[in-house]
Amino acid sequence: MSIAFPTPDPGILARREEIIAGLGRLVPPGALIVSEDERRPFETDGLTAYRRMPLAVVLPTSTAEVSAVLAFCNANGVKVVARGAGTSLAGGAIPQEDAIILGVSKMSRVLNLDFENRTARVEAGITNLAISAAVSHEGFFYAPDPSSQLACTIAGNIGMNSGGAHCLKYGVTTNNVLGVTLVLLDGTVVEIGGDHLDSGGLDLLGLIVGSEGQLGIVTEATVRILRAAEGARPALLGFPSPEDAGACVAAIIASGMVPVALEYMDRQAIRITEDFAKAGYPDVSAMLIVEVEGSESEIDEQLRRIAAIAERHKVIEVRAAKSEAEAAAIWKGRKAAFGATGRVSDYICMDGTIPTGQLSFVLTRIGEIVEREGLRVANVFHAGDGNLHPLVMFDINKPGEMEKAERAGEDILKLCVEVGGCLTGEHGVGIEKRDLMPVQFGEADLAQQMRVRAVFDPAWLLNPAKVFPLEGRVAA
Amino acid sequence: MSIAFPTPDPGILARREEIIAGLGRLVPPGALIVSEDERRPFETDGLTAYRRMPLAVVLPTSTAEVSAVLAFCNANGVKVVARGAGTSLAGGAIPQEDAIILGVSKMSRVLNLDFENRTARVEAGITNLAISAAVSHEGFFYAPDPSSQLACTIAGNIGMNSGGAHCLKYGVTTNNVLGVTLVLLDGTVVEIGGDHLDSGGLDLLGLIVGSEGQLGIVTEATVRILRAAEGARPALLGFPSPEDAGACVAAIIASGMVPVALEYMDRQAIRITEDFAKAGYPDVSAMLIVEVEGSESEIDEQLRRIAAIAERHKVIEVRAAKSEAEAAAIWKGRKAAFGATGRVSDYICMDGTIPTGQLSFVLTRIGEIVEREGLRVANVFHAGDGNLHPLVMFDINKPGEMEKAERAGEDILKLCVEVGGCLTGEHGVGIEKRDLMPVQFGEADLAQQMRVRAVFDPAWLLNPAKVFPLEGRVAA
Repeated sequence: MSIAFPTPDPGILARREEIIAGLGRLVPPGALIVSEDERRPFETDGLTAYRRMPLAVVLPTSTAEVSAVLAFCNANGVKVVARGAGTSLAGGAIPQEDAIILGVSKMSRVLNLDFENRTARVEAGITNLAISAAVSHEGFFYAPDPSSQLACTIAGNIGMNSGGAHCLKYGVTTNNVLGVTLVLLDGTVVEIGGDHLDSGGLDLLGLIVGSEGQLGIVTEATVRILRAAEGARPALLGFPSPEDAGACVAAIIASGMVPVALEYMDRQAIRITEDFAKAGYPDVSAMLIVEVEGSESEIDEQLRRIAAIAERHKVIEVRAAKSEAEAAAIWKGRKAAFGATGRVSDYICMDGTIPTGQLSFVLTRIGEIVEREGLRVANVFHAGDGNLHPLVMFDINKPGEMEKAERAGEDILKLCVEVGGCLTGEHGVGIEKRDLMPVQFGEADLAQQMRVRAVFDPAWLLNPAKVFPLEGRVAA
Repeated sequence: MSIAFPTPDPGILARREEIIAGLGRLVPPGALIVSEDERRPFETDGLTAYRRMPLAVVLPTSTAEVSAVLAFCNANGVKVVARGAGTSLAGGAIPQEDAIILGVSKMSRVLNLDFENRTARVEAGITNLAISAAVSHEGFFYAPDPSSQLACTIAGNIGMNSGGAHCLKYGVTTNNVLGVTLVLLDGTVVEIGGDHLDSGGLDLLGLIVGSEGQLGIVTEATVRILRAAEGARPALLGFPSPEDAGACVAAIIASGMVPVALEYMDRQAIRITEDFAKAGYPDVSAMLIVEVEGSESEIDEQLRRIAAIAERHKVIEVRAAKSEAEAAAIWKGRKAAFGATGRVSDYICMDGTIPTGQLSFVLTRIGEIVEREGLRVANVFHAGDGNLHPLVMFDINKPGEMEKAERAGEDILKLCVEVGGCLTGEHGVGIEKRDLMPVQFGEADLAQQMRVRAVFDPAWLLNPAKVFPLEGRVAA
């Protein structure tokens, strides 16, 4: 266990009863969770290797209640960890013993749908998929699609600036949120952005998206909804080497085409997936799934151009889906890949992002790094936007193996920064990558970020010990 | 003249010689402008009704020089007004007597082109069009296209988050900038963003874009370059009323199609333009120019669908361009519209943005507001993203007429906010809309923006008396 948690503040622990009593006066019965059994599900999130029991869990039902809870915590020096559905892969929602969890899951209503202006106003605890479900009858959808979209909330998506397979074409969360209601630590309610293009003054919206619950609590959001395309179909492309597949990705992107999705799987990932999902994938060194959308003739034309590019990069297998059934068969394995890997091994999933031109080089180096530790890696990721997801496999029951995997993961992320990329594409920093931030950012860069953070949270109470170096508060 | 300037600091004016001597030690000969004649071109920008003579003008040739100049100004309490090409329509680059102009026009090199990853690294003083010119031989272009693109710099585009006719499809500046080098007031050089998707930590990049030179000086930028489409052609649509044209805009947007440009001209604008440019426009109540792009067959298909939507909104004239010559004829008048208006009258150009569903209502109300003042208005604007540009015409030689025009402009912007829109779509706040900011933002909203601004500029030296209410510094 290499990630440090701060020592809990004994003064807060001693005042637990009083704090709980105070919170109980601010929210309705059922919105405050204090028993150990009921707090246990909130101990961790998607990064289950780490866990801490929160002081209490509060699940407010309105912006006014969130405001009251934050003002109380501010006045009493109580730390606050924001939580959506708790699916964060970087430990962004893991609490600490002297912090309360403030969850928005009870605030999940659709407030307004405006198809003419293509916007939806929702409470922040609504799930990602529920937004698309609310607008699908008119042929619309909400574009960013994290794998966890059935469970994860728009609040969490905003906190982490979440992505997904379709973000190559439609952008990540920050490109699809137009405005938010934000409650500041002192309880002030601020409106940021709106239904319109741009705005005067400082763009605080971009600052809020991806701020991991450290600037305030988002209680409502206006999101962009898009008209779904007439249709979409993928092609599967098999290559003799990762270098050829990587070069083909770069060539497709450089061609100016924008596929909806451009996913990569290496031989390790293909084999593990085949054992489990029986998708009928070819046994090749590297495979791409490229999905395009539009009318039938547009789809045909784009798949033809993509196949022509692949031919120039030594493709050895081309399967273009001609029907919905064939499309589903191509996606079946990719969608099962993470689950299939988890069935055969423990793994950690890294999230580095690199310029697409560096794909071949980085994939080769990842293989070398993991081999050095005597471990295996499966690569399944969003190749089109250079967002890697190497799954570094290890056996948690073998002493020292998790540490080896974490060391490999760390070196992989350093490599990503080295080639001009960054630590995280869509999972956020959380606790997982906190100690690596100085690899990407210089001292002046981090200091400036922390000074801005301090404007919103001078006492450093909001999701502390995340994102910025543990000693960060002092430096700021 | 209704916009107030602050009283110059007599202490700074008295120390002018000493300040000039200090600046002269930091930049090469020719980079410091002190004579009254040579300072005069820097007195104003695109908002020529207002002007002030700057203390001096510095045009550094490198990031290191910018850093030295800012550190000197910070140490000596000298105000700094950033300037690109001085084309700002909102007075964002107008100096004051106790401030120096810091212009980036001598820093205009292309530093790196990366076609594989579709990025260009440039110095911030390069003109908008020069970026496209540098990449056009490979079939690429830089998308945001303000009317001033021949002259305006990417530094100014970043400062104002500039748009243009093509932004409906490709987004405004903030969607096309990936990273910047920013010099802070104390001379610290900070790198923000990079070549990659997203990043860890706080997204300061979004905060910098549109911050109107109040957070630091951008000296370099990495921008996204895009592959140009195979072709593009417009259609001209004439309508019997503004209501029908407005409803047609909303219907095109709601259809899910994304034209490259969707421009609106009313009868007044058409007539003024015809007198001058002889573009052969029909004498209709309202006209749209809709441009789509793609392959020949994609263009035909999209124009067919747009014509079908227009039919349902009582269109009385449809001209789809079938050749480059026909396309140029359709654009000729639109491109001449501002110049043609300036030939017959003084005017102020407003920049409010509204949800597209409100177009018909707002156009009718604009007519009423302007008529109340006994003035005329020509409407020529980016309808697709709801970005209005009413040109309120007046005679500067008639006493009181400019005040009437400004009063009408103010009421038009209030109306935009009232229907869920905002004060500015692409011109920025500058001095022009500074006093209207409280119409859009509540006290808590503005206070939070000013607190963030104060992190970057605690002494309030960077482009002061702009954007935020004049009494703002005290409030922060």
